[in-house]
Amino acid sequence: MRILVLNGPNLNMLSERDSAVYGQDSLAQITSELVQSFGDIDFEFFQSNAEGALVDRLHAAHRAGVDAVVFNPGAYGHTSIALRDAIEVITPPVIEVHLSNIYARQGFRHHSMIAPVCIGQISGLGARGYFLAVRYLQRAAAEA
Amino acid sequence: MRILVLNGPNLNMLSERDSAVYGQDSLAQITSELVQSFGDIDFEFFQSNAEGALVDRLHAAHRAGVDAVVFNPGAYGHTSIALRDAIEVITPPVIEVHLSNIYARQGFRHHSMIAPVCIGQISGLGARGYFLAVRYLQRAAAEA
Amino acid sequence: MRILVLNGPNLNMLSERDSAVYGQDSLAQITSELVQSFGDIDFEFFQSNAEGALVDRLHAAHRAGVDAVVFNPGAYGHTSIALRDAIEVITPPVIEVHLSNIYARQGFRHHSMIAPVCIGQISGLGARGYFLAVRYLQRAAAEA
Amino acid sequence: MRILVLNGPNLNMLSERDSAVYGQDSLAQITSELVQSFGDIDFEFFQSNAEGALVDRLHAAHRAGVDAVVFNPGAYGHTSIALRDAIEVITPPVIEVHLSNIYARQGFRHHSMIAPVCIGQISGLGARGYFLAVRYLQRAAAEA
Amino acid sequence: MRILVLNGPNLNMLSERDSAVYGQDSLAQITSELVQSFGDIDFEFFQSNAEGALVDRLHAAHRAGVDAVVFNPGAYGHTSIALRDAIEVITPPVIEVHLSNIYARQGFRHHSMIAPVCIGQISGLGARGYFLAVRYLQRAAAEA
Amino acid sequence: MRILVLNGPNLNMLSERDSAVYGQDSLAQITSELVQSFGDIDFEFFQSNAEGALVDRLHAAHRAGVDAVVFNPGAYGHTSIALRDAIEVITPPVIEVHLSNIYARQGFRHHSMIAPVCIGQISGLGARGYFLAVRYLQRAAAEA
Amino acid sequence: MRILVLNGPNLNMLSERDSAVYGQDSLAQITSELVQSFGDIDFEFFQSNAEGALVDRLHAAHRAGVDAVVFNPGAYGHTSIALRDAIEVITPPVIEVHLSNIYARQGFRHHSMIAPVCIGQISGLGARGYFLAVRYLQRAAAEA
Amino acid sequence: MRILVLNGPNLNMLSERDSAVYGQDSLAQITSELVQSFGDIDFEFFQSNAEGALVDRLHAAHRAGVDAVVFNPGAYGHTSIALRDAIEVITPPVIEVHLSNIYARQGFRHHSMIAPVCIGQISGLGARGYFLAVRYLQRAAAEA
Amino acid sequence: MRILVLNGPNLNMLSERDSAVYGQDSLAQITSELVQSFGDIDFEFFQSNAEGALVDRLHAAHRAGVDAVVFNPGAYGHTSIALRDAIEVITPPVIEVHLSNIYARQGFRHHSMIAPVCIGQISGLGARGYFLAVRYLQRAAAEA
Amino acid sequence: MRILVLNGPNLNMLSERDSAVYGQDSLAQITSELVQSFGDIDFEFFQSNAEGALVDRLHAAHRAGVDAVVFNPGAYGHTSIALRDAIEVITPPVIEVHLSNIYARQGFRHHSMIAPVCIGQISGLGARGYFLAVRYLQRAAAEA
Amino acid sequence: MRILVLNGPNLNMLSERDSAVYGQDSLAQITSELVQSFGDIDFEFFQSNAEGALVDRLHAAHRAGVDAVVFNPGAYGHTSIALRDAIEVITPPVIEVHLSNIYARQGFRHHSMIAPVCIGQISGLGARGYFLAVRYLQRAAAEA
Amino acid sequence: MRILVLNGPNLNMLSERDSAVYGQDSLAQITSELVQSFGDIDFEFFQSNAEGALVDRLHAAHRAGVDAVVFNPGAYGHTSIALRDAIEVITPPVIEVHLSNIYARQGFRHHSMIAPVCIGQISGLGARGYFLAVRYLQRAAAEA
Repeated sequence: MRILVLNGPNLNMLSERDSAVYGQDSLAQITSELVQSFGDIDFEFFQSNAEGALVDRLHAAHRAGVDAVVFNPGAYGHTSIALRDAIEVITPPVIEVHLSNIYARQGFRHHSMIAPVCIGQISGLGARGYFLAVRYLQRAAAEA
Repeated sequence: MRILVLNGPNLNMLSERDSAVYGQDSLAQITSELVQSFGDIDFEFFQSNAEGALVDRLHAAHRAGVDAVVFNPGAYGHTSIALRDAIEVITPPVIEVHLSNIYARQGFRHHSMIAPVCIGQISGLGARGYFLAVRYLQRAAAEA
Repeated sequence: MRILVLNGPNLNMLSERDSAVYGQDSLAQITSELVQSFGDIDFEFFQSNAEGALVDRLHAAHRAGVDAVVFNPGAYGHTSIALRDAIEVITPPVIEVHLSNIYARQGFRHHSMIAPVCIGQISGLGARGYFLAVRYLQRAAAEA
Repeated sequence: MRILVLNGPNLNMLSERDSAVYGQDSLAQITSELVQSFGDIDFEFFQSNAEGALVDRLHAAHRAGVDAVVFNPGAYGHTSIALRDAIEVITPPVIEVHLSNIYARQGFRHHSMIAPVCIGQISGLGARGYFLAVRYLQRAAAEA
Repeated sequence: MRILVLNGPNLNMLSERDSAVYGQDSLAQITSELVQSFGDIDFEFFQSNAEGALVDRLHAAHRAGVDAVVFNPGAYGHTSIALRDAIEVITPPVIEVHLSNIYARQGFRHHSMIAPVCIGQISGLGARGYFLAVRYLQRAAAEA
Repeated sequence: MRILVLNGPNLNMLSERDSAVYGQDSLAQITSELVQSFGDIDFEFFQSNAEGALVDRLHAAHRAGVDAVVFNPGAYGHTSIALRDAIEVITPPVIEVHLSNIYARQGFRHHSMIAPVCIGQISGLGARGYFLAVRYLQRAAAEA
Repeated sequence: MRILVLNGPNLNMLSERDSAVYGQDSLAQITSELVQSFGDIDFEFFQSNAEGALVDRLHAAHRAGVDAVVFNPGAYGHTSIALRDAIEVITPPVIEVHLSNIYARQGFRHHSMIAPVCIGQISGLGARGYFLAVRYLQRAAAEA
Repeated sequence: MRILVLNGPNLNMLSERDSAVYGQDSLAQITSELVQSFGDIDFEFFQSNAEGALVDRLHAAHRAGVDAVVFNPGAYGHTSIALRDAIEVITPPVIEVHLSNIYARQGFRHHSMIAPVCIGQISGLGARGYFLAVRYLQRAAAEA
Repeated sequence: MRILVLNGPNLNMLSERDSAVYGQDSLAQITSELVQSFGDIDFEFFQSNAEGALVDRLHAAHRAGVDAVVFNPGAYGHTSIALRDAIEVITPPVIEVHLSNIYARQGFRHHSMIAPVCIGQISGLGARGYFLAVRYLQRAAAEA
Repeated sequence: MRILVLNGPNLNMLSERDSAVYGQDSLAQITSELVQSFGDIDFEFFQSNAEGALVDRLHAAHRAGVDAVVFNPGAYGHTSIALRDAIEVITPPVIEVHLSNIYARQGFRHHSMIAPVCIGQISGLGARGYFLAVRYLQRAAAEA
Repeated sequence: MRILVLNGPNLNMLSERDSAVYGQDSLAQITSELVQSFGDIDFEFFQSNAEGALVDRLHAAHRAGVDAVVFNPGAYGHTSIALRDAIEVITPPVIEVHLSNIYARQGFRHHSMIAPVCIGQISGLGARGYFLAVRYLQRAAAEA
Repeated sequence: MRILVLNGPNLNMLSERDSAVYGQDSLAQITSELVQSFGDIDFEFFQSNAEGALVDRLHAAHRAGVDAVVFNPGAYGHTSIALRDAIEVITPPVIEVHLSNIYARQGFRHHSMIAPVCIGQISGLGARGYFLAVRYLQRAAAEA
């Protein structure tokens, strides 16, 4: 099973952000723990601060036959219609993940533009959100 | 570890609601699968269509020393300040679960009144959302 | 033909409310007149001030095979998503009745949360609204 | 007893509109059935696609001593202050009828500009709404 | 003089809520201090987390001839049209009391649905608000 | 000097409207008093309940070389973009007159769609508003 | 007959403001022309840039038995609840005058806080608005 | 192929409107150029300032078997639900044309009530918009 | 203990305002009753119709070491950020008092700009509100 | 004549999007048909999923002396102020094209941020929209 | 060069306000430092808590031939149309200065009513904002 | 001291934009003047039309130990949450600069998404805004 773990803007700086909000792990740590935990999953990882590059990467995953996407869109998740359209046009299903509880923060973080076209959303559970999303996809595939 | 799985209005009718939105499991099936999957958890289950009864049950869980709550508030989650206050006053942490992707439905379902006082929220992952929530709590307890 | 006549909060106090707005009949009078007028209808009557009890009663009507519901939701009709969901999940069709012309009163009474999932709505025609609703259901059944 | 049955824009096309929304009867059929059903009522019928012509007709009904009006204002009901003012200035009472459940359609159909100055409103009960309105007026006159 | 002191959701948990916001007294302490302070008042006390039960209790107070009500509606005060209608239908006057300064908290606590049908409102003065309300009623009765 | 006095919907019913709001004069009385008071003005009078007929009449006044228009648009003044466009396209200046103080009535009467393209507005001074408007035009012409 | 002509902020600078919007007269010129035109009126004139001083002057006019007020509130007319309350508490009637057509300017000038408690409003007719207001008051007094 | 070219309010005054916004052609010139350019199209032309007359004309086109409609609704396009309903009820497809770029003008011109029920919209391309609309219909018919 | 009783615009006219809303006492009566009732309090009284003068007086109270302020801001309470800032900058605590129930009046009176920086608010209890506020301050001081 | 045909995000995936909404042509097909249809036009084609790259390309077209731009901004058209500013700063005129009728889709697609600075807009006419835009530019150049 | 440094409400209390927000300097210190730093500037200083006095002072500066104004309007900057009008009517240019970053505080401080009629705005740079504003004016005068 | 001067979209076209709004300098001129004016500052300059590239550059400045950033975000400043997050995550302080007075332009330019996380903002002072920002940083560093 091939899964793309896609991360949006500022997540490359994760270990330098406010740890009370985002936890203490760096993105590299999360990445290596995912690989260790799920030996039978074929992961691809991509992070970019550019909206267009994330759209490109979703298209590429579609053409390459990736089975599913775990997507932390960061700030772009609140406003990007382009990402929403990209998720709608591609075949693999997408799960939205946010490290922080976006509903407990400022008003402009309460709305997700991409949520309506994703399978579901996990927010506020820190780095563990990625693991829960992968586990869900693994189970869903096993049951299909 | 003691966990209360709390369900709000109309969830007793789960197997009769639109299966494209809510899945095909009944609440009883979800309940028995949770018990089977997590042998070491001491579960309590409660469902009510009454807002006040849900508030009462949260208070009772607090007094009885329950460790955590997995809460699907159904329709009351969108408007109930009383449930929000109840969650804030009690000690055990609460995770909000919605079977459907509430952000892909009507506008009045996009807002959760209780989200800001929960640890986090899982929506759109169907019955599996309950399992992920319990797993999170189990891990968080192990790491504490 | 079995019809549930369901009444929401404060309608038990009907004869004590402002008669210019609500008319002079008590709920008991309306009830007995309905029974007299429609001898061939098997009526059930229920009034509660509790939102959850009204949800419960709609579920029960569904399980008991009631053919239709005439529902005056009172104040809960303006805000209750739980009642809306209950009406959507059950099989028997529902007609919404309001004694007063809710559109000629305060702004917060102009919106009905349940109207979109009912067959139709009668407002402002006083106690006679119940009779017209029952007559409609009788005819619709005869023509079906 | 003299009753004006007044119909607004596009209701002349009734039998060609979406029958799932508006039913299958033409306006002519409804008209002739009303005459047959209520032998003792002196009906007048008028339909126009022009807002001003509807205002004119309400004035004329007032001057001619019509006893009451059953009014399906169609699209003008949502925005016309001129029709609202006309209803307010004339003596005969007006009941608002909508064939479809306007609250289950687009947002711009949820508001009725004329509802606050009518006696009451019947919506969503199809052509039968006209009959229930006439029956109400008949009874109200008998009881007066 | 008979006064009903009515308390809404979560006030049974008063001593466990944030003391910086709500003060340190429990509801039981407030109750016994009220009885001690006003020997000549015939108090009744009722607390419930259920909106419907509070409506029922207001109706009962009316039927039993209670002279006035001191009502801390808690969270229901911000949204409940049912409680507003109940206060409007009953004879005894009602004073709204809030322990905390609701206007210094979140936006959704700034609006009181019941304020327009109460005599007045006291907020932000802690447990002392109950005493001030009773004192006001006592004086008003003496001067009447 | 030629002046068109143009009146919109329901103003033909003036003497039958609420005299506390609109005064006691009929439109015919106002008309004849204007003719008497201003012997040197060449008046034209037109009233219609139809928005399109009012647009037509403004165009006609323009083609006929009328010098100015005193316009009471009634209900159409609050919403009609067509009348606004008509006033903008014609040469003669327009003064807007309202018999009642539209700012002391319902919210939907507080906005005038045509005010920004008129010279000015007189509201709340009853039938005398027409006289003041004509006097203003007379003076402005004398001073030009 | 005693009339107070009251002017609000920046009207002392009238002749230095944009003449396309406000005309070319200074406040002194308007004042002397009013005195010349209405020999039988006992005028008082007051201008202030201070909201409180305008409130004080309205109170003083009331105590001194002034018959009516012509009031150009300038910028304070759009927001001042204190001036609204002052107009409501005093006996003499008030007419609101604006030199410019406030409805053809920025949105924040479209709303008048005091209009609902004045008799009427004249806007956009320049300095002549004061004369028309005085003439109206003169006539109204003559007819009373 | 039969095409109705329908024009709404004030378009009969086209050559007298602001040429910077609307261009210099009169409606008659546009009409004759359309006839010359498309020799094989059977055109019908209709202009009215009355909303009801435009609704009537759309109905008539439907009954007469017109193949398509090119419609410049003018001011009514922004608010008319009656025109929207008429377009929805008839069979021939409608293309909306605006001479000016409605999105570069006042806010109340940015919304088209009829756009959602038309095939498409052309705005800001002046009189040439009519030609492009006809060319589109011609091609679409050829390809069908 | 020194307490400043501060009153805003139009409260000098209290006895001439609508007694159904504001009660029958003049400000002078309230003042003398306060002095009589609380012999051990050192009162200062100040009323002004000017926002700036009220700001000045709050500053002066701070510099003079006043212990607390009972403030009825009248109309300025709904909009004044300057008064809010003044209350925040000074040391003595402020209690907001409104004679009428501001939440039962027009919408623009429902919001208090200063409430978030006061200790609490008493509204709708008439002149008695001042007494309750002083009593609260007396107790709070005794308990401190 | 040199024309840049510029396409925004996800239009590279055109043939894989919902054909009921976007038609069946790929972007490559549209491109080659444009070249064939307009032999005398010197076309440049550019597509990007990146907002910044589209801004860059508009600047480059300006510097290279392109005569006009046909621009389908896709999702960025609804929100991008940067693209709006770029269109405003460059010399060549821009026509906005949307394949689908954006006014018949979700609310967030109804607004175009760039429309006010384009010459005009064509929406809902599918791939043919590009051809009509080019034809318009060809004619406009011929007439200039 | 003559510059008026104008300060609005509560700035006389500067050294007593929250130093984390406003810095530690008193207004007197800022004043004397400005005089020392810019020996060739002829300064005038004025502070008032009264809106009207600030309007008066701007008028006076205009009449006295002041070259420019550095204005910290404090709380009045968010709402005062009178100050906006005063700035527009006078000749000398005005720069708006705020000590704190008004965009990082409560929502009601995010809007400046006077910003559109000032040359520019400096906020959040503390007392240094005054110096930068004066330096800008000095340079602009030198370059003119 | 190392300062990054960062410029957003379309600022590379500065000398070709409307000089009445943006001034006449090109970005290159501003750059060279900054270098000349502040010989002791170690400047870095970067301009991009891509949001992601600006986020990348802020991260790089942080890693490279830049002391402060002067940032003109152009159009992205009004909407970009990604830039806001980037500013929050990095250590060097940021001052926001706008050449034009954004508050005197269209409504969508009045809001800055990044202002709350910057130290302060300078707008409307043209190219001089950059110099004032650098001077502020220089002083702040000297005083630290």
